[in-house]
Amino acid sequence: MENSEKRVGIEQILVGVVGAGSMGGMHARNLQSRVAGARLAAVADLDTDRAGKIAKGSGSAVFRDAVELIRDDGVEAVVIASPNATHAELTLECLRVGKPVLCEKPLATTAEDALKVVEAEVELGRKLIQLGFMRRFDNQHVAVKEAVASGAIGAPLLFRGWHRNPQVVPSLVTSESIVLDSMIHDLDSVRWLFGREIDEVYTRGISTKPALEGTHDLQLTQMSVGGEFLASVEVYVAAEYGYEVGLEVVCESGTAHVAPFDEAVVRRDAAQYQRIDTNPFDRFQPAFMTEMQQWTGALRSGEHPEGPDAWDGYAALVVAESCIASLGSGSPQSVTVPERPTLYRNEGLGVVR
Amino acid sequence: MENSEKRVGIEQILVGVVGAGSMGGMHARNLQSRVAGARLAAVADLDTDRAGKIAKGSGSAVFRDAVELIRDDGVEAVVIASPNATHAELTLECLRVGKPVLCEKPLATTAEDALKVVEAEVELGRKLIQLGFMRRFDNQHVAVKEAVASGAIGAPLLFRGWHRNPQVVPSLVTSESIVLDSMIHDLDSVRWLFGREIDEVYTRGISTKPALEGTHDLQLTQMSVGGEFLASVEVYVAAEYGYEVGLEVVCESGTAHVAPFDEAVVRRDAAQYQRIDTNPFDRFQPAFMTEMQQWTGALRSGEHPEGPDAWDGYAALVVAESCIASLGSGSPQSVTVPERPTLYRNEGLGVVR
Amino acid sequence: MENSEKRVGIEQILVGVVGAGSMGGMHARNLQSRVAGARLAAVADLDTDRAGKIAKGSGSAVFRDAVELIRDDGVEAVVIASPNATHAELTLECLRVGKPVLCEKPLATTAEDALKVVEAEVELGRKLIQLGFMRRFDNQHVAVKEAVASGAIGAPLLFRGWHRNPQVVPSLVTSESIVLDSMIHDLDSVRWLFGREIDEVYTRGISTKPALEGTHDLQLTQMSVGGEFLASVEVYVAAEYGYEVGLEVVCESGTAHVAPFDEAVVRRDAAQYQRIDTNPFDRFQPAFMTEMQQWTGALRSGEHPEGPDAWDGYAALVVAESCIASLGSGSPQSVTVPERPTLYRNEGLGVVR
Amino acid sequence: MENSEKRVGIEQILVGVVGAGSMGGMHARNLQSRVAGARLAAVADLDTDRAGKIAKGSGSAVFRDAVELIRDDGVEAVVIASPNATHAELTLECLRVGKPVLCEKPLATTAEDALKVVEAEVELGRKLIQLGFMRRFDNQHVAVKEAVASGAIGAPLLFRGWHRNPQVVPSLVTSESIVLDSMIHDLDSVRWLFGREIDEVYTRGISTKPALEGTHDLQLTQMSVGGEFLASVEVYVAAEYGYEVGLEVVCESGTAHVAPFDEAVVRRDAAQYQRIDTNPFDRFQPAFMTEMQQWTGALRSGEHPEGPDAWDGYAALVVAESCIASLGSGSPQSVTVPERPTLYRNEGLGVVR
Repeated sequence: MENSEKRVGIEQILVGVVGAGSMGGMHARNLQSRVAGARLAAVADLDTDRAGKIAKGSGSAVFRDAVELIRDDGVEAVVIASPNATHAELTLECLRVGKPVLCEKPLATTAEDALKVVEAEVELGRKLIQLGFMRRFDNQHVAVKEAVASGAIGAPLLFRGWHRNPQVVPSLVTSESIVLDSMIHDLDSVRWLFGREIDEVYTRGISTKPALEGTHDLQLTQMSVGGEFLASVEVYVAAEYGYEVGLEVVCESGTAHVAPFDEAVVRRDAAQYQRIDTNPFDRFQPAFMTEMQQWTGALRSGEHPEGPDAWDGYAALVVAESCIASLGSGSPQSVTVPERPTLYRNEGLGVVR
Repeated sequence: MENSEKRVGIEQILVGVVGAGSMGGMHARNLQSRVAGARLAAVADLDTDRAGKIAKGSGSAVFRDAVELIRDDGVEAVVIASPNATHAELTLECLRVGKPVLCEKPLATTAEDALKVVEAEVELGRKLIQLGFMRRFDNQHVAVKEAVASGAIGAPLLFRGWHRNPQVVPSLVTSESIVLDSMIHDLDSVRWLFGREIDEVYTRGISTKPALEGTHDLQLTQMSVGGEFLASVEVYVAAEYGYEVGLEVVCESGTAHVAPFDEAVVRRDAAQYQRIDTNPFDRFQPAFMTEMQQWTGALRSGEHPEGPDAWDGYAALVVAESCIASLGSGSPQSVTVPERPTLYRNEGLGVVR
Repeated sequence: MENSEKRVGIEQILVGVVGAGSMGGMHARNLQSRVAGARLAAVADLDTDRAGKIAKGSGSAVFRDAVELIRDDGVEAVVIASPNATHAELTLECLRVGKPVLCEKPLATTAEDALKVVEAEVELGRKLIQLGFMRRFDNQHVAVKEAVASGAIGAPLLFRGWHRNPQVVPSLVTSESIVLDSMIHDLDSVRWLFGREIDEVYTRGISTKPALEGTHDLQLTQMSVGGEFLASVEVYVAAEYGYEVGLEVVCESGTAHVAPFDEAVVRRDAAQYQRIDTNPFDRFQPAFMTEMQQWTGALRSGEHPEGPDAWDGYAALVVAESCIASLGSGSPQSVTVPERPTLYRNEGLGVVR
Repeated sequence: MENSEKRVGIEQILVGVVGAGSMGGMHARNLQSRVAGARLAAVADLDTDRAGKIAKGSGSAVFRDAVELIRDDGVEAVVIASPNATHAELTLECLRVGKPVLCEKPLATTAEDALKVVEAEVELGRKLIQLGFMRRFDNQHVAVKEAVASGAIGAPLLFRGWHRNPQVVPSLVTSESIVLDSMIHDLDSVRWLFGREIDEVYTRGISTKPALEGTHDLQLTQMSVGGEFLASVEVYVAAEYGYEVGLEVVCESGTAHVAPFDEAVVRRDAAQYQRIDTNPFDRFQPAFMTEMQQWTGALRSGEHPEGPDAWDGYAALVVAESCIASLGSGSPQSVTVPERPTLYRNEGLGVVR
């Protein structure tokens, strides 16, 4: 095999992953087995044992300090999958060293902080940030958007979304964190589908379990979009039965919605059964894989990645904060997303593929 | 055959139908061919030709005047399928002569008028009125309610409904009439499913076609129910593609929703197809038949019909008027349904079957 | 009510039911509650208590002797739902007294006996017999046949059928009785769908349970039809999980198959569920109702009923006997159905509706 | 980047692809973009331009002579996707040089030639050959097999398979080639599902289009398996409407079948639509990717690939030749597969995963 490196000289992009939890581990595994043309070059985590386990077998470097990983010469691109509170600062560091970064949502813990990231990127003058709104790479979301974009059923009028998690750890969630961590995906989906900003939200919530008393673990938001469209999204993080995310779009002369469950059908005991996923990693595994293949593929070929950008991360946070305000006030809340800077025009809201 | 009447002496209930339009015609046909133990005895319509065509072949009497039909000795029970504006007055006439009546929705054109009917029935002291909320007899609605009632998926938390008509005649509808004629069905479904009253509504609407400018032909209502549950219903009366009514109920530990389309599956031209109904008469034909079989069956056996009653007709109108107010004000609207009179307790909100 | 009979003088056909078992009881109940224009006039069973229970409340006469019922002046039309061994003789009695008869399948216990019935009807010169192949009235079978007949997917080429019963009483079945009682339905479906006779069968069977040792409770028949088409039908009478009947037709440029299960969808415990019927009476209740409505409707209006006729009953038996011969010999078996007498031409194989 | 190769020293398996047609091109693309840990090292085709196009951008070597590629030091493992007639000889060459080979089906054009390959591998004493029966890596096939293997629905009794191609070039197919190229997949699926050999086949065929006169483009085979089970498979290579492969397995107490189409659902024009694939590359893309990921993954880790082996290739050909004989004779044909050599015991028929 000694001569093989000479003969097959394909460049591989060297990726560093910050955060060795379930999300970082998932990205690392994809890099190691399902993405050609990229290598897991480094893993950072305060818990270096955890980082080491993920790096193991791939010869990747291990860092305790995320900033050190970002600055390391052996890292060409960065994935940020560390706790939310670190996202803005680490993303800014990537901008400082000029390295492309795939940052898990949310971009920051407040819209104000997210705006600072946007402003830094505008100042830099080129887009380096992709947000981890992986649904934009999900076959079913893409298929629904393409069905709408085909024109065969007219313009989209109403978005209906549902998003269910089997359970949460009561001590780790609040009504607000459910908006910022979960509903933010659905808010991005609405923006992405319409290619328009949300301008009003009315969020109601209920607490469905004694252990979650005081927390609105089931939330329903009715929205106005772009001054002329409607949306309704449900988020239920204690749904017990499984993990499910879906959307239906009602258009002028037809509708499009996600496919039936793609699981083998079993008939027994006077019933027909199909298995349902119980966590987002199973449900969105192909989307995470495609997200990584397309992001690293674009970096290798020198093209701009077409995924969601910092502006999408910022705008989703503006809407999320309005949902939180509505939950608190019990009234509809106007949403004002500022004008999009030139850097983000005509990008980021198109069909990804 | 001369001796047959003697040997087979089953009593048949004699039913008079007021209104010979599409709804009255449908009820008359069911009475003539799909309901044992009842006979179409009379048809009334200002257009006696139209009434005659429906009566033809069944030996039924034809009336121009609905009140005359109601008072006629040959009529034992009355179906009211005439224009909305006549419902309250004709129902009151039935109460006056003590004849059971199946009145198409809405019970009246205002909640105030509906309340008068309720008060008259309370005064009479016995229930004679059934409202034509036929969805309560639809297999799919009943199956979803039974799945919820089984307890296997916990208490119901959120109702999601959709209701689409292919088209309307622009000159015949307004934003308000769409609430009163179409969304009222969905409001009844919410009340029926939860067995609780709706206490807040927030209705938004858009106009989807130039011909419908100024009319909110697509309406979305987010509701609070019984102080602790949520609901969202969509009504779109210019949906073009077909007629569709559905519901999904999210419960504590599971969900239940209507069945897939029960149509043969055809594969051709790189696609799989299933036909969709284009009008409510096809979609709800079995429900209308069951409604009539159960109503006349109960009358024959001397039992109280278990279908929706005058109170349901009144309460749905109270909510509908709140939706109209919300559409106008752009704000959520509190709904106050008065306390239910004794006559209507423990009845009318149970599973029908 | 005294004047009502005068005013509503619709004739009702008086129907006598022979056999008070589950099949006869089902027909009687349909006549009593779901079929307008017909009355249950008499019930016959050796067990007159059982007959009496069914007749109860309808004022029907009760007979011990089926022949007496058939000859009774108060009976205008006869349903035969007694044991198979009596079918041929009782049907011949109906021909003798000139009364229309709906005979449950099989028409006889041998093709030879069935031919005698056919010959008697040909001798009589008019069709009085309808066979109880109720699938021809099933919405799904009709929808598949109509999809094929529409021409949109080309000519039919291949029929695939499946037919599963949850269980049988081992002492009551043999490999042969399963062909004669169960597979005969599928053989009729093949003939009906193609409008052609089956000309070769190859039947293989296995015994799936210790209690059924020696009995082929799972049978698979591959057929040639009309010299140019193919079919494969499966019959499994100990399938345990439920009752299911389906068909798929492969055509030149597309396929058509039965609809998905029309049951509410419940999601819980990491799975999606739909209930499956467990017996033919639930699955085919609407078909039995339509069969009776159309048969009595045709008799009232003086038209020929369009359902399956004596020839269909005979031809299905000829094929069934060939399947039994194939099971025994382990070889494909040619089937020779004689030429159809003029009385049965151009009738009975069309789409029923 | 100069230091990256040192730091990330994962070995990559060097794969040569023989045949630059649609199948070889597909394998090459998977190696280049969706399989980590492997590289496309060489492509061989008599048409070196065609080979060059596939190799382009990956730095792979191009060969005119397949044998030269197989013998080349820069090739560690070989994919054979050249015309069927070359399979046996090239596979034997791989055995001679001791390189692992993934050979597209069929292993040879006759069972006799396939046996020679088997004998050479037995002589060699270790398994180097994997057969390209990619369905064993298809999620749906695997899910159905796992549902059966779970024991929840009892032992498998009956396999029902269907396999439809939209069209073929009439001049390129014969009744025999359809068995050898298409039905051979279904025959392997039957063997794989039951883990038993097929012992009798009865194949009937019809010609469905004037252009295919004399060719049985629709074939139906009824089988006996392992002396106690049944199977029926349909192959229709001029089905026009799309590409579809499915299976249903009937077990003692339940059934399992492939999932519904995983395509977004669009409602318009009074119908519900879902797209159907039109070629095997779309339908089985994920299976081809998994096949390649697992094969190269096993080679890298030094484990035996668990996919189908040379014996599976041989046994499928023995059955296929019996189907051809049955088509010719019009009679059922016994199948005698010899005893499996020790090398192939306890391997190759298990669930892949």
